[in-house]
Amino acid sequence: MTANNKKQNNNPGKNKVHNGKNVKPKSAKYFKAKTSSKKKEKKSEPKPPIRIMFLGGLNEIGKNITLFECCNDIFILDCGMAFPDGDLLGVDLVIPDFTYVEENADRIKGIVITHGHEDHIGGLPFLLSRVKFPVYGTPLTIGLIENKLKEFNLNKDVSLNVVNAGDTVKLGCMKVELIHVNHSIPDSVGIAVHSPAGTIVHTGDFKIDCTPVDGGMINLSRFGELGNEGVLALLADSTNAERPGYTPTEQTVRASFERLFARAEKKRIIIATFASNISRIQQIFYCAEKSGRKVAFSGRSMINYVSVAKELGYIKMNDETVIDIDMIKRYPPEKVVLVTTGTQGEPMSALSRMAYSDHKKVEVGFGDFIIISANPIPGNEKAVGNVVNELLKKGCEVVHESMYEVHVSGHACREELKIIHGLVKPKFFIPVHGEQKHLRKHAEVALDMGMQHKNIFIGDIGNVVELNESYLKQLPSIPAGKILVDGLGVGDVGSIVLRDRKHLGTDGILIIVATLDTENGNVISGPDIVSRGFVYVRESEDLFEEVRQNVDDILYDCAYEDIHDWATIKNRVKDGVSKLIYDRTHRTPMILPIIMDV
Amino acid sequence: MTANNKKQNNNPGKNKVHNGKNVKPKSAKYFKAKTSSKKKEKKSEPKPPIRIMFLGGLNEIGKNITLFECCNDIFILDCGMAFPDGDLLGVDLVIPDFTYVEENADRIKGIVITHGHEDHIGGLPFLLSRVKFPVYGTPLTIGLIENKLKEFNLNKDVSLNVVNAGDTVKLGCMKVELIHVNHSIPDSVGIAVHSPAGTIVHTGDFKIDCTPVDGGMINLSRFGELGNEGVLALLADSTNAERPGYTPTEQTVRASFERLFARAEKKRIIIATFASNISRIQQIFYCAEKSGRKVAFSGRSMINYVSVAKELGYIKMNDETVIDIDMIKRYPPEKVVLVTTGTQGEPMSALSRMAYSDHKKVEVGFGDFIIISANPIPGNEKAVGNVVNELLKKGCEVVHESMYEVHVSGHACREELKIIHGLVKPKFFIPVHGEQKHLRKHAEVALDMGMQHKNIFIGDIGNVVELNESYLKQLPSIPAGKILVDGLGVGDVGSIVLRDRKHLGTDGILIIVATLDTENGNVISGPDIVSRGFVYVRESEDLFEEVRQNVDDILYDCAYEDIHDWATIKNRVKDGVSKLIYDRTHRTPMILPIIMDV
Repeated sequence: MTANNKKQNNNPGKNKVHNGKNVKPKSAKYFKAKTSSKKKEKKSEPKPPIRIMFLGGLNEIGKNITLFECCNDIFILDCGMAFPDGDLLGVDLVIPDFTYVEENADRIKGIVITHGHEDHIGGLPFLLSRVKFPVYGTPLTIGLIENKLKEFNLNKDVSLNVVNAGDTVKLGCMKVELIHVNHSIPDSVGIAVHSPAGTIVHTGDFKIDCTPVDGGMINLSRFGELGNEGVLALLADSTNAERPGYTPTEQTVRASFERLFARAEKKRIIIATFASNISRIQQIFYCAEKSGRKVAFSGRSMINYVSVAKELGYIKMNDETVIDIDMIKRYPPEKVVLVTTGTQGEPMSALSRMAYSDHKKVEVGFGDFIIISANPIPGNEKAVGNVVNELLKKGCEVVHESMYEVHVSGHACREELKIIHGLVKPKFFIPVHGEQKHLRKHAEVALDMGMQHKNIFIGDIGNVVELNESYLKQLPSIPAGKILVDGLGVGDVGSIVLRDRKHLGTDGILIIVATLDTENGNVISGPDIVSRGFVYVRESEDLFEEVRQNVDDILYDCAYEDIHDWATIKNRVKDGVSKLIYDRTHRTPMILPIIMDV
Repeated sequence: MTANNKKQNNNPGKNKVHNGKNVKPKSAKYFKAKTSSKKKEKKSEPKPPIRIMFLGGLNEIGKNITLFECCNDIFILDCGMAFPDGDLLGVDLVIPDFTYVEENADRIKGIVITHGHEDHIGGLPFLLSRVKFPVYGTPLTIGLIENKLKEFNLNKDVSLNVVNAGDTVKLGCMKVELIHVNHSIPDSVGIAVHSPAGTIVHTGDFKIDCTPVDGGMINLSRFGELGNEGVLALLADSTNAERPGYTPTEQTVRASFERLFARAEKKRIIIATFASNISRIQQIFYCAEKSGRKVAFSGRSMINYVSVAKELGYIKMNDETVIDIDMIKRYPPEKVVLVTTGTQGEPMSALSRMAYSDHKKVEVGFGDFIIISANPIPGNEKAVGNVVNELLKKGCEVVHESMYEVHVSGHACREELKIIHGLVKPKFFIPVHGEQKHLRKHAEVALDMGMQHKNIFIGDIGNVVELNESYLKQLPSIPAGKILVDGLGVGDVGSIVLRDRKHLGTDGILIIVATLDTENGNVISGPDIVSRGFVYVRESEDLFEEVRQNVDDILYDCAYEDIHDWATIKNRVKDGVSKLIYDRTHRTPMILPIIMDV
């Protein structure tokens, strides 16, 4: 390995020697092969490979986390969470499985975060409460992370490092260069990983906005330079790969807002948007100040994001423009803009509370002009539609369709993806950030751009790919999955609990309790029947009496047959009652017999 | 009332005198006024009013049912069901509240059905099992109803009457004229109600298709004639009122299918579509026969619809084109088209079963070319996306986006709505068939066409409007709502059961059972703790032991304090355990104490 290490030291970024437990790299064979011929090494010795490991963000939207491993050094890119799908009943959020990270903690040099969205930073507190690594990100990103870590009382234990687009972070043998991109939150970056294996480009979440509201246009020229220098692999955002054309510039929204502010006339304006969409909020300030309206905020996350963004100078406005939500009644409606959360119809969000007359401070009606400045995320269409319907019933005017251009996406559509592919000209391509259908569509883009099928890898979480200039191959997978967070519990809700929740939620439960004599199995008390979520009990007394009688008979038979094994008795009760209930109702509640003995 | 009856008899369609209980019409005042001056009657006596009562289809998609009442006669238009929203946990389907229909059964002359979709016929078996009325509809519609009534053993008791577009059905004082319209099922009609009050036009579900696959173009000229003769009120389909422009013709789909059949080459083609979309299935037959493929069907509803449609001559094909699904393996893939249900990602549907390897007869993979010929209904986007992802993971090629034009809507977009408004030129307008946002958008269309605000009525279910040539006014509402059907139970699942299901499904249940001595309250057996859907029990033994100890203490205290009231003891246990569980887990399972006594 000596020769190899020497060679690595010639390469800038190779001057750190890691300590801790020595995990033998799976590429050991390769190293051996290389040391066998020094002469050959100078001429055509292949570069060492780099491994990319996916713990999230493939075959799913959200929970983005990728590991890069080269010559035994590892760094983590992003550490996100995901919101639970509808079938994850009662689950608050979903985080990655950190097993591999914990087991290889000593080799991990740090975490680089591309931007401050929850699907890129939301898993950090859960990871950093177990193992600590230095975190690197742009100023706004680090500001938002600091805020989040405070909630978990972690902010004092973690090394947070502010870096800027254009900067390079040295992480073991790898140098991570941050490249400015456009997205729906300022200070977003993609990265170029300069490694002994070659350069890997990861776009992060991005779009191409030539006239963004903040931070300037994506640094396309740097992507082009990297492409000219030679890029081993491109990993790029697939979120909008199904959409043809281009995502419009964020400026589009300003023009729409200006028209709508004029149309609102004497009405109070309420705008719902993503709390993290600082550029959108900036545009609301422009329009508000231009039309002499004050701006108030509703929703905890909105207030959090805005305060961090304002403190760090990412929102420009006159201090007197902002008013507290308690003050809005002191102004006439035409002098107020209320910015709120709730674009996704979330039941507890500020906008939903307004719609269902459940907001403590805001009552909406005929005098309100409401703009929902976001599109529903797939799965939320119905909830958003319901909120719109309720607001309309209250007499509000509601602007929510795409035709008004009150929202643009933060992700690149197909033509933008082609530009990135064309600039970066990678040898290998791995579509990331998307469900299978997005990853496949993105692969089609690469094929259309002339890439060979064999150079494209469509992966899944847990997958490990090893690549260098001459090959890309899949290695055995590492542990990965969805860890469910429910209340304080992390990972204690699994498939059995979820299956039971689904059954209970669909069909309810019927509990049968009886106290039996341990000696002879005679019924001492009960059987009592208790149900929840099954039928309206008061109207089903006959059915319940029939069940009670049925259980009584079964217990009598068991005693008569001298059966004292509680499990057998329970099974007989369960089978008998299930059958009876299904015959009478065609329903299948959970049947839960409980036998007490005295 | 004599004069009034005489006058009615002059009007064709007035020659039936109804019997049964005499429900005093709310318009009695009007009749009195009319009889006071015979002279005035001839000159300017206003016509009697007509009442329209909505039991479904307003502020909801589906469950369409409207009552028309004039001079004490009533008829029902459509009798649909709705599929439950996600918050109606475990509910199979939703039907209208028939209270008013049952209470006024003797005045009801019959039911007219516009077309054979579930949201227009699905409530019929539930209504007709309680009260019988003659049912009128076009041949396919009646065929589908007959099929449905057979399932409920009702087909022999109900008078089913086949009528055709252009025919008029006399129902008491009203004559109901059926007008051919285009929609996504053949034999659809709108109606003109010729009543003593004037003419009411109800479009039913419709679109304007100048080149439909079946049945010819919508009878626009009849709508125009009616408009020229004078229409009191228009009730029109609002489903697509949010969409600008025109809905494309069904022929569009044929061109897409032909392209895709060519592209599929040697692959087996699987097409998912709505079972009721007979025209779509007809086009699949055209393409299959043209390309020499056999057609098989999967999914119970698909087989039902196709057999009725074929029997009645609504599908034209060579008999040898159809093969049984068991036969498909005997043909090479390029000789097969499999038509299936499951366009909405329904978990039990044929396509979902194929995607999740759970279909008994069909296994899908690399050799399959799958076309989803439908758009997701709002709320189903996520489920459909999941099915697409699974099919892609299996290696299938999947066509599902709108860009391929493999689906067109069956409902009129805004420009089509304008044409109907322009032809019918009604005095009053009532948008129907839609959520609040659709009804409002449709009202905007009427306003754009020059109608006055006061002549538009946006209603809700239960609303009753009375109108004649000089006024439209709202009368007190009648009972209306959502009756939930779960298994065999109709209406026995209500808000309490649903609330419990939601709680159980989100947080699970913790049951605490103890047997106490009736005399002194001492614990004889237990307390036992049983949980479902809360935590993984094996990993939470400490927590459960802590709960058991806590309950033991509470029961001991109760016995010590001489409390023998079981309700008080249960409340103390519930409060104590709830608090403990929340402290430890930040979760709120349902806590259910059960006390047995001996």
